[in-house]
Amino acid sequence: MSSIAFIGLGNMGGPMAANLLKAGHKVTVFDLSADAVKRLTDAGASSAAAVADAAKDVDVVVTMLPAGRHVENVYLGDKGLLSSVKPTTLLLDSSTIDAAAARKVAAAVEAKNIDMMDAPVSGGVAAAAAGTLAFMCGGSKQAFARAKPILASMGKNIFHAGGSGAGQVAKVCNNMLLSVLMVGTCEALRLGVDNGLDAAKLSEIMLASSGRNWTLEVYNPCPGVMATAPASNDFNPGFMVDLMCKDLGLAMDTAVLTQSSTPMGALARSLYVAHQSNGHGQKDFSSIIELLGKSINEPA
Amino acid sequence: MSSIAFIGLGNMGGPMAANLLKAGHKVTVFDLSADAVKRLTDAGASSAAAVADAAKDVDVVVTMLPAGRHVENVYLGDKGLLSSVKPTTLLLDSSTIDAAAARKVAAAVEAKNIDMMDAPVSGGVAAAAAGTLAFMCGGSKQAFARAKPILASMGKNIFHAGGSGAGQVAKVCNNMLLSVLMVGTCEALRLGVDNGLDAAKLSEIMLASSGRNWTLEVYNPCPGVMATAPASNDFNPGFMVDLMCKDLGLAMDTAVLTQSSTPMGALARSLYVAHQSNGHGQKDFSSIIELLGKSINEPA
Amino acid sequence: MSSIAFIGLGNMGGPMAANLLKAGHKVTVFDLSADAVKRLTDAGASSAAAVADAAKDVDVVVTMLPAGRHVENVYLGDKGLLSSVKPTTLLLDSSTIDAAAARKVAAAVEAKNIDMMDAPVSGGVAAAAAGTLAFMCGGSKQAFARAKPILASMGKNIFHAGGSGAGQVAKVCNNMLLSVLMVGTCEALRLGVDNGLDAAKLSEIMLASSGRNWTLEVYNPCPGVMATAPASNDFNPGFMVDLMCKDLGLAMDTAVLTQSSTPMGALARSLYVAHQSNGHGQKDFSSIIELLGKSINEPA
Amino acid sequence: MSSIAFIGLGNMGGPMAANLLKAGHKVTVFDLSADAVKRLTDAGASSAAAVADAAKDVDVVVTMLPAGRHVENVYLGDKGLLSSVKPTTLLLDSSTIDAAAARKVAAAVEAKNIDMMDAPVSGGVAAAAAGTLAFMCGGSKQAFARAKPILASMGKNIFHAGGSGAGQVAKVCNNMLLSVLMVGTCEALRLGVDNGLDAAKLSEIMLASSGRNWTLEVYNPCPGVMATAPASNDFNPGFMVDLMCKDLGLAMDTAVLTQSSTPMGALARSLYVAHQSNGHGQKDFSSIIELLGKSINEPA
Repeated sequence: MSSIAFIGLGNMGGPMAANLLKAGHKVTVFDLSADAVKRLTDAGASSAAAVADAAKDVDVVVTMLPAGRHVENVYLGDKGLLSSVKPTTLLLDSSTIDAAAARKVAAAVEAKNIDMMDAPVSGGVAAAAAGTLAFMCGGSKQAFARAKPILASMGKNIFHAGGSGAGQVAKVCNNMLLSVLMVGTCEALRLGVDNGLDAAKLSEIMLASSGRNWTLEVYNPCPGVMATAPASNDFNPGFMVDLMCKDLGLAMDTAVLTQSSTPMGALARSLYVAHQSNGHGQKDFSSIIELLGKSINEPA
Repeated sequence: MSSIAFIGLGNMGGPMAANLLKAGHKVTVFDLSADAVKRLTDAGASSAAAVADAAKDVDVVVTMLPAGRHVENVYLGDKGLLSSVKPTTLLLDSSTIDAAAARKVAAAVEAKNIDMMDAPVSGGVAAAAAGTLAFMCGGSKQAFARAKPILASMGKNIFHAGGSGAGQVAKVCNNMLLSVLMVGTCEALRLGVDNGLDAAKLSEIMLASSGRNWTLEVYNPCPGVMATAPASNDFNPGFMVDLMCKDLGLAMDTAVLTQSSTPMGALARSLYVAHQSNGHGQKDFSSIIELLGKSINEPA
Repeated sequence: MSSIAFIGLGNMGGPMAANLLKAGHKVTVFDLSADAVKRLTDAGASSAAAVADAAKDVDVVVTMLPAGRHVENVYLGDKGLLSSVKPTTLLLDSSTIDAAAARKVAAAVEAKNIDMMDAPVSGGVAAAAAGTLAFMCGGSKQAFARAKPILASMGKNIFHAGGSGAGQVAKVCNNMLLSVLMVGTCEALRLGVDNGLDAAKLSEIMLASSGRNWTLEVYNPCPGVMATAPASNDFNPGFMVDLMCKDLGLAMDTAVLTQSSTPMGALARSLYVAHQSNGHGQKDFSSIIELLGKSINEPA
Repeated sequence: MSSIAFIGLGNMGGPMAANLLKAGHKVTVFDLSADAVKRLTDAGASSAAAVADAAKDVDVVVTMLPAGRHVENVYLGDKGLLSSVKPTTLLLDSSTIDAAAARKVAAAVEAKNIDMMDAPVSGGVAAAAAGTLAFMCGGSKQAFARAKPILASMGKNIFHAGGSGAGQVAKVCNNMLLSVLMVGTCEALRLGVDNGLDAAKLSEIMLASSGRNWTLEVYNPCPGVMATAPASNDFNPGFMVDLMCKDLGLAMDTAVLTQSSTPMGALARSLYVAHQSNGHGQKDFSSIIELLGKSINEPA
């Protein structure tokens, strides 16, 4: 078992740290929210008064932060991680941030011969709680080999996407594609229903045909078709429109940097941002079906 | 076993009729091409000199024609099917045509108390030959019950989508969604490769994540990733750009009629039509990856 | 002066017929609405009990009807125009319909050696009343030469776009482009305002630069920038979203027929149809700015 | 007359500096290219060996640089402008860069109580040479009042868009809109030509109708319609695809920062980047008409 510092105990970080505790690791936590800290100390974690204190003398640090600027600050700031960690500590950043920021931080860390890996996650709050997250990792083979057993306490699919930043790139590509799958599926279902088909029947047909995709499998956007999907629960998330907008913003930043053409991904971003701006940022991302037109009624 | 007239022996119709023969049915064929007819008579079919002759006195007629105007002509024309078939004959149209034409023909047929079903297929030439097509059927329950054992000689997934025209609608929805999956997957793979990721590795990651879709499963558009995919075989079809353009045209016609919003499907149509117009109509539809930019090299 | 039959006295046809009267022509009208007929007979027109009666023995017939099926019926139906008009009568159809229907009707008319022209209009209700419509005409040079002085009583820009159907094609191209100008202008203004610019100032700058277009000139979509624009009058039309959706549907039908790629026009259609389906069909088409996000406030 | 340092003598900066000389100003230039410097010294300018030397003791500094990182370096670097200019010097940056970088530099400059303005240009190389550029300025009223007479030697439309960065925002909005006008116009012309219309005739009709826009006025993308347009000259620029891609990248960066929805602008970027990636970056931006399909022939 390892000694682990966990920085950032939000909706995702909190349950991830709890799973590390359950797996028998010694965990020291830090967060600005006393409530978030208390939930973990109640579960057996120690707490620290500052990032640098939490990270001093541990085997592994895991960070889970909102954006690139927080990551830069926590790693590279005056009293940041680099000011206190041992050279043998493994640094794992599970935040979803832009690849450029990830590479900048990794370069500074590796300049000190410290192992680091970007390891953003996929799967949302439910998978964080269940310990079934997917991790998309970027960094050296050595860092990946060290990280894998730790990540296995929090997730089930652990991929080594490539060098520093590759985890962020893989996540951004996947989530951009997810947004396209979702909008495309909403369109196809609406077109069918508008032409008299039953949404559940059409879903079944496309699921067995070349239209098959993840959203039809587990996340049908048509209310009433799939009881467990957010669409059947007033579009309560699930995965919020706000978060999809953030990820699609990162995708566009990435595409601009490498001059990549992403017509569908770019369209998805503008549709999601319009939906968000019209007041639906807190809904599940499958609610984009409502931007396309009047309500689809539940099938009889 | 049934006596079956088969009208239209093209790339799809030919192997479909052959599979009916293999299943032990008595098949009479008609086509304007003597070569196409000969291939089937060599395999044991009878032939007829005219549509009306072929269809006289059979249990079932199957038609496989290029477009709505051919279907209208073959069914409703002066010497068409309705001029010769018995009232007990079951009429199955497997052509991919617009739902409005399908409903018009079905209404004329059913006005004579004859059972009819639109039953377009999915799966392409390979599935036609292997007898593994998917059929999406529109018509009455009675017609579907009669059709199912016949269709089972030519395909494996046989869906009853709803009343007359519903088979055409289901196909159009599925193929519109397929086009979106394909373009979205091409974009995601390009974005990853442009940012230094390996296409095969990224494909593997997305396949195990929420980007999973039919194209990643069996039809990877990146040359070299999947040996059996058209992308690894110079984009030889497979499913031609020309055919995808036809299906997306039907999707747009359908969307205009019911005033449905299909932003991604409409964008896919314009991208595919641009690709077609630039001389790539005979390539596999996964070649749309080349419209988005310079060649993606095979992974090392 | 000519004797003219005018068929179809809706929002557009009514004032157009009135302008023919004002110009001194002898006008006989027909419409299913007694109220609409009365407004014109009060202004000096004669009325007829049927299309064929109105058109018998006149120099010119003008039709202004909602859709292709009405036009086909009025021209080619049992008691339609072709059953009663003299061979020397000039037939002008100002309806906005699909080019294929226009060509079909024109072919039937010209087979009888009667001059006909499709002459759809641009400019909306205000221009119809003011007699400042633009006419986009399709037909022979001879038909155009005969039509021009008649049309000059109802409009000011009278274009000969080409042969039969060319008027419809020109209108559809223009209005598709207009929809793109409008959405593009809304986006640019929103992006500027979201970044702290004043909408009026940014409009002024773009109007003097390469972003200049008709919407910035006379139809600014940002409330408060242009007092006379629908945007400053609660988006009362003006040119309704419903009508833009109709025209964009015709554009897509046309593009499908000729396999033309129209990525922006297709996107505009899906955005407008989504806006319509969400309950805004009766608003001016500049209200699409609201689909893109929360209200833009009037500039201080 | 003023003493002016001009930093950056590329395709745009060179002729701009020359126009300042022609207007009678005393100009000191700096560029890394000896050739570029020589052209200006031949025309009467002085030269300096370093940025800081050129800018010491002048009334005004004008910079014209490729990207934000160059601007940051020239203004804020060790031997940058801020290390040598007098507090009374007016700093004008005509580079096209992201608004965030412009604001960062302006804040650093203004912290020293020095007047600064972002003043990107529109109009291209021809307008730079002719002294007819449009300037879109961001900064204080005082800075604008001081800048206006200087800029008037190089351009004719000089706009005050707002505070620091507002010039960059205005330019990005305008050029994003321009890209949409261009693609939309290409689509409309293709759709017309595909349906048998003459491109010149259709252009004339739309120019007099609600499709009117800058590209139809002075920059028709259809070869042969407008003799002076790049389309009639093998798409030689004019305004290169590479530059449009750069500006659309800035537009997307800006839209991501403020969470603005830009469906058409985003689509334009992906189309232009695909065109660029396929080897057409050095062509005029009106060549996007070729991405949409096979060549449009010159009208007869």
